[in-house]
Amino acid sequence: MADRPVYRTALGASSPDRITLLGHDLAREVMGEVGFGELAFWLATQRRPSRGQTRVFEAVLAALADHGFTPTAIVTRLTYLSAPDSVQGALAAGLLGGGSRFLGVTEDCGRFLHDVLTRAEGGPPTDDAGWDALALATVRARREAGRFVPGLGHHVHKDGDPRTPRLMAIAAEEGLFGPHLALFAAIGRVHPRVLGKRLPLNGAGVCGAALADLGLPLELLRGFALLARTAGLIGQLAEELRHPVGNDIFLSVDLNNASVDPDPYRPS
Amino acid sequence: MADRPVYRTALGASSPDRITLLGHDLAREVMGEVGFGELAFWLATQRRPSRGQTRVFEAVLAALADHGFTPTAIVTRLTYLSAPDSVQGALAAGLLGGGSRFLGVTEDCGRFLHDVLTRAEGGPPTDDAGWDALALATVRARREAGRFVPGLGHHVHKDGDPRTPRLMAIAAEEGLFGPHLALFAAIGRVHPRVLGKRLPLNGAGVCGAALADLGLPLELLRGFALLARTAGLIGQLAEELRHPVGNDIFLSVDLNNASVDPDPYRPS
Amino acid sequence: MADRPVYRTALGASSPDRITLLGHDLAREVMGEVGFGELAFWLATQRRPSRGQTRVFEAVLAALADHGFTPTAIVTRLTYLSAPDSVQGALAAGLLGGGSRFLGVTEDCGRFLHDVLTRAEGGPPTDDAGWDALALATVRARREAGRFVPGLGHHVHKDGDPRTPRLMAIAAEEGLFGPHLALFAAIGRVHPRVLGKRLPLNGAGVCGAALADLGLPLELLRGFALLARTAGLIGQLAEELRHPVGNDIFLSVDLNNASVDPDPYRPS
Amino acid sequence: MADRPVYRTALGASSPDRITLLGHDLAREVMGEVGFGELAFWLATQRRPSRGQTRVFEAVLAALADHGFTPTAIVTRLTYLSAPDSVQGALAAGLLGGGSRFLGVTEDCGRFLHDVLTRAEGGPPTDDAGWDALALATVRARREAGRFVPGLGHHVHKDGDPRTPRLMAIAAEEGLFGPHLALFAAIGRVHPRVLGKRLPLNGAGVCGAALADLGLPLELLRGFALLARTAGLIGQLAEELRHPVGNDIFLSVDLNNASVDPDPYRPS
Repeated sequence: MADRPVYRTALGASSPDRITLLGHDLAREVMGEVGFGELAFWLATQRRPSRGQTRVFEAVLAALADHGFTPTAIVTRLTYLSAPDSVQGALAAGLLGGGSRFLGVTEDCGRFLHDVLTRAEGGPPTDDAGWDALALATVRARREAGRFVPGLGHHVHKDGDPRTPRLMAIAAEEGLFGPHLALFAAIGRVHPRVLGKRLPLNGAGVCGAALADLGLPLELLRGFALLARTAGLIGQLAEELRHPVGNDIFLSVDLNNASVDPDPYRPS
Repeated sequence: MADRPVYRTALGASSPDRITLLGHDLAREVMGEVGFGELAFWLATQRRPSRGQTRVFEAVLAALADHGFTPTAIVTRLTYLSAPDSVQGALAAGLLGGGSRFLGVTEDCGRFLHDVLTRAEGGPPTDDAGWDALALATVRARREAGRFVPGLGHHVHKDGDPRTPRLMAIAAEEGLFGPHLALFAAIGRVHPRVLGKRLPLNGAGVCGAALADLGLPLELLRGFALLARTAGLIGQLAEELRHPVGNDIFLSVDLNNASVDPDPYRPS
Repeated sequence: MADRPVYRTALGASSPDRITLLGHDLAREVMGEVGFGELAFWLATQRRPSRGQTRVFEAVLAALADHGFTPTAIVTRLTYLSAPDSVQGALAAGLLGGGSRFLGVTEDCGRFLHDVLTRAEGGPPTDDAGWDALALATVRARREAGRFVPGLGHHVHKDGDPRTPRLMAIAAEEGLFGPHLALFAAIGRVHPRVLGKRLPLNGAGVCGAALADLGLPLELLRGFALLARTAGLIGQLAEELRHPVGNDIFLSVDLNNASVDPDPYRPS
Repeated sequence: MADRPVYRTALGASSPDRITLLGHDLAREVMGEVGFGELAFWLATQRRPSRGQTRVFEAVLAALADHGFTPTAIVTRLTYLSAPDSVQGALAAGLLGGGSRFLGVTEDCGRFLHDVLTRAEGGPPTDDAGWDALALATVRARREAGRFVPGLGHHVHKDGDPRTPRLMAIAAEEGLFGPHLALFAAIGRVHPRVLGKRLPLNGAGVCGAALADLGLPLELLRGFALLARTAGLIGQLAEELRHPVGNDIFLSVDLNNASVDPDPYRPS
């Protein structure tokens, strides 16, 4: 290694009298001019989004920001209870629950739709009949493989997730209803023919489809769910400061612990 | 504990046919209607911000989103290099650097200004002379205690941090130049009389002052810096995907390691 | 920066045919020869501990490894529930609760005792009467300052924490009952004269005293509590795999959520 | 949910006058009696290990504790630099790199060997010829699938990883050289016949084989690597306190940043 390595970034940079972000003067061209959703999109793609792209993106972030007492919310509250000196630790702990099960559907669904589209012979369909045929083949293939379809089904919103039609409508209004949303919608239409029952297209899934249609990097779809959730977890912490429940949650687990002393299954 | 504990939240909630966020219908009243910065403010305060409050808040987030190859950015890239299966881990690791030194100035400055204002006899001043007098007493007291003034000084922007006048101007435009910003500005005017040299009011500090003037919870000012940085770290990951440097950074450390074998200071 | 920086470490190093750890041949001199507690001590101090030092250190680790359904244990189980693909995330999330409140007493107590000893005029006492006098002055000073004494008091073990006399006895057996433990024991003897009631010396506190007497770095006492807890959290995960309760804990919080729809305190 | 849920754990429990760990009196039967490696094994399996099992387990932990300036070590140092108030954050950040690439080989190799053994018709072989035949079929199948064999190959120790024969010898000495190690050793013997070149059996892989032979849960093999690494990261922090290099590492990246101002690839 004869030479020192040089590292490049097109994000933040500074010199004594100037700070740039994404190649623009931070103080004059970004602060006060660029909204936070718009900026997050821009940072992720290094392409400034249009007003419509920003609106769809922010609708996705709103859909994913907070779902009440999820495991991630409970984790953030309990970590803050235990280590109130470290807000960053409480937020990081909550985000660590953003994995395959609770926040992963968004990414899984976006990647799944993208894979199907990439492999579709002759390119993506051009009419509803074409979409239905592709969706039908897709659902059949999953069923034959014994695998479920990402984004299909919800344990609470059994008759329909209200986020799904709303996000599709927003994307359509902004001219951003692209192939991922089209395929997802078609899956919603045709799957009962294969599965014998109607399942809802869930909100996490439609968010993945919309993010993929926006051209955001598939590897980071989970990251956008985490960005949304960061705002939600700050909300959870703010509420915990005003109306604390973390200690009650802890005690409800600890005091309902059957093993206080009697050694429930004593190891050999 | 005779009864089951009941936990309350006013954030996200859902029933089979409805999802609410902050007491509003998520699909109809939030998605497509509320920007992400606005939503983050709302979640943190449970008060919907005005357009001006949102603009100041988003200007702060822009100022803090990314500062290039900070320790947090390097940490996120190295963690992704090491565990690419876990985007949440890479983001969480980066956020864990958001503590007292690199991201803490925002919170420290907001709290410091608030403490001074709370203790000011007769309430906050009403004119510039009053602000200057309070600032002078404040800087003197810090100097006598051998402590520096939070938000004062910057290792790069020695002649002025361009974010500071810009954020003050935005706050003033929106009618949100409150007592924290007023005190901070006064500190900027008077400190040379005490310290014998002129230091810049830094960008992290002015962000803390502006957030405090917005009425955001002081305990969570660091949290907003972390929210901004989450967007920046996603940008860092997106760039790492396109132009990876994490492995070069790792190797530049590892291969410049003097201890490969010769046991530099052999323990007893 | 004309030259490349060079970084030194005396921990792990390797060349094509040899791996060293702490300056010793890893395969021949460490593996199979050095226990894990001994190695952890050695890594932290770069001094190989004696058999007695190792025994006291491992007794501390045993005392801190697991305390049942603490917030950290609940957090690890819920994070695993939510992101089972990332064991590292579940462990990291649990450790993030190891802050000032739940795991911090060990560090606080060790630092506190060390500060008192450092400031004691004429050096540490040489007999019990001297220790009692120092302890008395210490407890009085804390009381006058309105602050409690770290390591004193326990919400469950009101009549005595069984770990405390046991750890003191082990340290004494090994000739490692040093000034921190002596001061802590004296605080246990004299505090009722000041406080008017007898409080137990708690286990977390005595661990801090013992670690300080072992000469471990005070800045990292919390780190040893976290090392112990890592073993405990792996135990919690192993148990969760065999007898899962994480989902029940989550549901007990979520289903006891009063805010499912009725908007408990609707924001303006 | 008519009744309060009850949660069980066989790990830590306490009543006012007694603390138990794994069903034993913590103070009398565990502290001073049980080493830390032994305890970690016991917590993970709820079976107290024999002296030989503990020795093999601790040899694995020694092999994985620290490998110098790995990404995880750099991350822990940089996070501590940035947030020195949170030791737990610095350790957690380092552990988050313990994913698929750098610490994952141990788990991958253990699981892989287990899968092969589970699927072997007629049960595991009983002599070297049988092991070689199974290994040969295994390596061939991987090669035909275009996949590499977990645990085979090392970028530095090309002529042999010294940890591998040592760990096998220790396991043999303790009568714990079981089927996973036998298969791994056979892969080492036969793979050149398939691959046309000799690759080393690496240390991370042999650790996975040994942990699997110890009967530890396969889902948590990565967890033991993380436990070992926690001790290593505490060592890295202790060294950083004495001989700091974190800031130099940060500056070497930041100052070698080509993008300070000239906007390297200006976004549109």
